[in-house]
Formats: sequence, C-alpha cells, structure tokens
Amino acid sequence: MNLTRQHALELDARDPLAHARDRFAIPDGVIYLDGNSLGCLPKNVAQRVAAAVEDEWGMGLIRSWNTAGWYTAPQRVGAKIAKLIGAAADEVIVTDSTSVGLFKILAAALRMRPDRKTILGITGDFPTDAYIASGVAKLTGTTFKRVGDRDLGAIDATTAVVSLTHVNYKTGFIHDMRAITEAAHAAGALIVWDLSHSAGVLPLELAKLNADFAVGCGYKYLNGGPGAPAYVFVAKRHHDTFDHPLTGWLGHIDPFAFADDYKHAKGMDKLLTGTPPILSLTALDAALDAFDGIDLHQLRTKVEGLTSLFVALADERLMRHGFTLASPRDAHQRGAVVSLAHAEGYAIMQALIAHGLIGDFRAPDIVRFGFSPLTTRFADVFDAACIIDELMTGRAWDTPEFKSRKAVT
Amino acid sequence: MNLTRQHALELDARDPLAHARDRFAIPDGVIYLDGNSLGCLPKNVAQRVAAAVEDEWGMGLIRSWNTAGWYTAPQRVGAKIAKLIGAAADEVIVTDSTSVGLFKILAAALRMRPDRKTILGITGDFPTDAYIASGVAKLTGTTFKRVGDRDLGAIDATTAVVSLTHVNYKTGFIHDMRAITEAAHAAGALIVWDLSHSAGVLPLELAKLNADFAVGCGYKYLNGGPGAPAYVFVAKRHHDTFDHPLTGWLGHIDPFAFADDYKHAKGMDKLLTGTPPILSLTALDAALDAFDGIDLHQLRTKVEGLTSLFVALADERLMRHGFTLASPRDAHQRGAVVSLAHAEGYAIMQALIAHGLIGDFRAPDIVRFGFSPLTTRFADVFDAACIIDELMTGRAWDTPEFKSRKAVT
Repeated sequence: MNLTRQHALELDARDPLAHARDRFAIPDGVIYLDGNSLGCLPKNVAQRVAAAVEDEWGMGLIRSWNTAGWYTAPQRVGAKIAKLIGAAADEVIVTDSTSVGLFKILAAALRMRPDRKTILGITGDFPTDAYIASGVAKLTGTTFKRVGDRDLGAIDATTAVVSLTHVNYKTGFIHDMRAITEAAHAAGALIVWDLSHSAGVLPLELAKLNADFAVGCGYKYLNGGPGAPAYVFVAKRHHDTFDHPLTGWLGHIDPFAFADDYKHAKGMDKLLTGTPPILSLTALDAALDAFDGIDLHQLRTKVEGLTSLFVALADERLMRHGFTLASPRDAHQRGAVVSLAHAEGYAIMQALIAHGLIGDFRAPDIVRFGFSPLTTRFADVFDAACIIDELMTGRAWDTPEFKSRKAVT
Repeated sequence: MNLTRQHALELDARDPLAHARDRFAIPDGVIYLDGNSLGCLPKNVAQRVAAAVEDEWGMGLIRSWNTAGWYTAPQRVGAKIAKLIGAAADEVIVTDSTSVGLFKILAAALRMRPDRKTILGITGDFPTDAYIASGVAKLTGTTFKRVGDRDLGAIDATTAVVSLTHVNYKTGFIHDMRAITEAAHAAGALIVWDLSHSAGVLPLELAKLNADFAVGCGYKYLNGGPGAPAYVFVAKRHHDTFDHPLTGWLGHIDPFAFADDYKHAKGMDKLLTGTPPILSLTALDAALDAFDGIDLHQLRTKVEGLTSLFVALADERLMRHGFTLASPRDAHQRGAVVSLAHAEGYAIMQALIAHGLIGDFRAPDIVRFGFSPLTTRFADVFDAACIIDELMTGRAWDTPEFKSRKAVT
C-alpha cells in the first residue's frame, strides 16, 4: 500500500459515502476517533430537539403525546433501527438504557427455559453485560457462567441463554453470529446479542440468522446523543410467549384504563416500562436519518478500508514506539475500532486528546481508535497516524499532567 | 367566599409566588390545568438544552462527560430535588424512570428483610406502582398484597416493605406520611413513598419522618419535560447496606476500570445502572431552577388556596350539572388536584380541551384538574369554572366527536 496523504485523499475522493459527513456538525481542529463511544451530532438534531422543547412541550404541552407522536416514538424509532439490524419494523423498540433492556431480556429468556439454570457469557465482554447477567442470576437463583469466546462446547443442556456482545468493545473482534446462534439453538438454548458496537458498522441479519433477542446502544455509531435510549429486538416467533419482570404502566395492554392489575401489551409494546425520555428519544429519532440512503454493504467496505489503512500506517510508523496491535489483523474479523496496546497507554491517550486527536483509553493498556464510517475520512486516518508518530517521537505524553489526568471517555 | 373574578384577581395580586409564572413559557389562549401530568416549560430550558446539543455534544463531544458535568448530573440534579423533599443532597439521585427506580428499591428492600415475604400496597394506587410491585414479587417469590388505604393494621410481621403513593394520583388525597411510616417501622417493615404527586406541591420531610426510601417523577410538578428521568431517595442509614439487582456499569465503584466483576459504588451512586439520558436530564436540571427562592410553605398555602377556590366555585356553579367532588373537601388533605366525577366525564374533558381548558380524564368517570402552583393563577381557576359551567349549560360535550375521541393524557 502507498501510505501517503495523497493516497488517503484519493480514497476519500472515491468514497461513495463521503457525502455523509456533511450531515454532521463536527468541530474544527479535532480529529475525532471516538464515535464508538459518543457519535457526532447530526446537523438535523438541533432544530428537531429545539422544536420538541419549544413547540411540542412548550406550546403543545400534554396534547403532544398524541399530536407530536411522542406516544409512538419508541416503536417509530425502533422501526428505523430495525432496518440497520436486519429485523422487521415491529421487532424492535426503544425504551430504557442498554443495561435495563438487557435485564428485561435475560429475565425473559430465563422464563422461557425454566428447567435450565445457567446464563452463559464470555470472558472479556463489555462489563455491563456481565454485571447485569450477574444481577439477574443472583435475583433468580440461576448461575452466570463465563467461558472463553471460542468455547462453543460450553453451551449445553444446562444453558438457558447465551449472552454476548457481537463486536468486542475493546478489540473490535467480530464474533461469528451464525455459528454461535446455531450452537446455542442446537443445545436448546436461547441467544441474546448485544449490538452496541455492531449496528451502524456492518450489515446485520438478525432475522435471517434466527437470533432470539438483541439489545444495543443508541449513542455510539447510531449518533443519538449522550445517554440516548437503547433498543431491544425480540424475534417475532417469541412475541406471544415472552414476558419480563419490569412491568411498568406503559407496557400494559391499555395504560389509560388505569386497571388495578397488570396485563401486558402485545408484541414489543410489553417491553415498555415507564415513560420514556422524550427529548433524548427525539434526538435519536432525528439522528437516525443520517443513515437515509446509506448502503450498509458500502458502509462495511468503508469500515474495512479505514481500519485497514490505520493498521498499515501503524505497522509502518507506530509499532516502533512500542505499540502492539490488540485488534484482529484480518479486516473481516474487525468492527470499526482499532486498538493498540502500550504500557503507557493512559498517558499517551491523554496527550493525544490534548493535541486534538480524540480516541479513548481502556484499562489496562489499550488506546482505542474508532472509525465511525459516516464521519471519518481516510485523510483523518492518515493525519491521526502522523499525530501519534510525532507525539511518540517527541515523548510528549511523558509528563506528570498526562500521567495523572482523570479520564472519563 | 366572594366568588367573583375581581376576588380572584385580588388573590393573584396578593400572591407572593405570582412572579414565578414569568419563569415559564405558557401558550396563549389556553388554561392549563394539567401540570400534574406534564409541567409547563420553564423559560431557561430551551437555551440550556440547545447548549447541551450544539456546544456540549456537537463541539465538546466525548470530552463533555467531564467538562460539561454530564458525569455528575445524576447527583447534581438529585441534590436540587433533595431540597424539595426534605432530604440531604447525597440521599437523592436521578437515574431511570419512576417505574425502574421503584423496581430497584423494592428489590433492595426485600433483600433487607429476607425473612419477610410480603410487599404491602394499597388499593387505588397509581397502577405502575402496583404493576412494578407485582413484577418484583413474581420474580422474587414474594407476595404483593393490597389493602385499603387506612388499614394500617395490615402491616405485620410478614411485611417486608410498604409501598404507596403519598398523594393519590386520581383524588389528590394526602396519606399521613408520619403515621404510616411509624406503623411500618413499628412492625419491623421498611417503607417506600412514591412522591410523584407530592414534590413541588407541599413541603416534604423525608429525613425528619424517618422514611426509608422514596421515588418520584421528574415531569409533573417538577416541570422537567416529557419523560424526564425520575429520582430515588435512600435514607443515609441504609447507604452501606442496601443493594439492588439492576447492576449496570455506571453503578460500579470504578466504572472505567472495566473490571470483570461487579463491585457496587458507595452510597447512592450504586443506584446508577446504564448511561442516563443526558439531554432529558439537562432539561430537568435547568427546570428545577424555577424553584429557586420559592418558599415551600408559601407554595403549600397557594395550593390550598387554588384548590379551595375551585371547590367553592364547583359547589356554587358546577355540582348542579351532575358533578360530584372526588377529592377531599378538607384542603389540608388535598394535593394540587381537584377531581370531579361525572358519568359523561370522558366526553366532557374532550370538549373542555377543545375549548381551551386542558385538564385530563381518568377512567372511569373522573375529570381531573391540576393546579400547579408556580404556573396557575387564581384568575385561571375562576375562568376554568366559568368555561366548565358554560360548556355544561350548553351541553357542548354531547357530540359523537367528543364521545369517541381517543384520549392520551
């Protein structure tokens, strides 16, 4: 590969998705490689949220539950996300946080397999997935067991549900959704996929692959804003049979009957619990329009191109500074992050941020760069590698300030 | 009482809180008596939310978790609410919906009374409180039992936790927090108060009355906007001992260590689950400033004045149309709503809304009017009674349209 800036500019010129960056407001003077943690602001969101505040809330007041479509927002936004994950419009709903959604789904799955007592996860998964599984297990008298991520043989007749993140948060490794789903089903278990690092990065085929459940985050590659509510997917074949314990009033079949006893709504609506955060949901609703007309196969090709360029530049210029590649070398096995391990990773990332290259640090030693495909240019990849190279060459990270700064990214 | 409009205007002229209405953007041509369902928009919110979207998210991006105070928002907003409910600043946190918060708290309370197997509620309480209690009971193998709201003798040695709404959503009846808390404690039980219809309406003394737990809504009298996140209170004496099953990553003692195993944070921070909806939380944060400098005893006096004027006007002009009072006649026993029962209540409320008087309907026969004290004038009360009288006199509600319209308020 010809690793010049000119080459990167040529890749941008040929990029069929290059126009999508214009849909976002992106600060000057910053290279932002952290869309995997908080996606950039789509330009249409500010006006849309302002209208929700000033017109819908301020002037419409309570009437806006009907007239502004607040009441149907969880389903409407879910239908937009369904297109990105290979689901039917009525198989996805947006409700609470990813953690709360996962709690509901794991509890639901355990009820569907009452004779089995194990939730099976994998080591090294995103902590909240493990923490929530532990919480559900403790509450229900079941066991949360973790195994290595290729240890499909651990799925057995005691496994009620397998729960894992499709694309690993730290390395970007893509698990084989087809093989693991099949292995779970072969053992009579159900499967829950956490798509937080998948949706918006690669085409997903939940329905086609026969997945049972999925959850995912609204604020990473979906660009829904800080703490955007999360989505839940349930395969249609389970709609009549699943239920969950977070039975709030909006999940009732007739919330405005104010009946004494709970009777759950049909289908995905039963996953509603309390009143959803409409302003945050409105931002996500508008943000998803940034995917309008985006071909998900082109999106995937771009992700592989961006990450491959970065890996090549890292090989050429960065490994000599003591970095090692913590992500898969094979682009087909990689989501949209490339992580480099370095013993001084913490201070290095703090210094990079201070120098205008925003990635993030994941303990103990990972500097992580996310290549959100709608907003990242090939030239950004080149410039990022140059900044890292310069900073490492000048040891600009080696200061007390960068070594002690508190990171929350 | 001299029930003229002039008298109402004189009450407004003497109202020490009359200036507070200027803190809100209120539509022209509407009398809004539904702040008990969705509070009006405080004027400072639009600018504050726009800054959160455009500056903090758009330009600050991930850095804003630190620089814009997103990370500490749940505690900061909780401290503002603490002042309204008689709690210490570090006894309140804002996280998910009221329903999800109540789920956490009921599960926590059951763990603190492992030998007791009953959650005790009252009949006629807000449905989500009962639905969530049922969900927790089913999941934990305990029982959710409901008794009449004066039946304190039902609290016994089998009761783990008593859970009820302080001010009834439908009638405005105020339960005796002191007596019920004492009765629960005398029986060795814990108590959870739902303050959704109390905070912002009357002074609360959770700490002084020795309450164990409380939850409450952000979008009613606190004016936090549609679906604003809810708060949770836990008495400091329980901070070291309580835990709950919704163990998400933000409730970890060191979320950014990304440790494999959950170890809960100290104090209220352990109630955090997933990433909170920052835009909705920002709106609530700003909205609470409308309470700056408001004396809660004056607020209470105004609530009693507003509701008493409406009851007097109803006696004089409305009962002859077939209404009966569904709220307590004694102002001291009444929150900020006055409800009238009428067999044609549904169509009547639809017609009132079409005529610019916004209250709401609660099945089967309640027309409910909420007198949010920061935004309602005594003249509004007078005008509302006149509109109802006119509409009933002219039978303007008696049309197929009003009888069939779908209500969601």
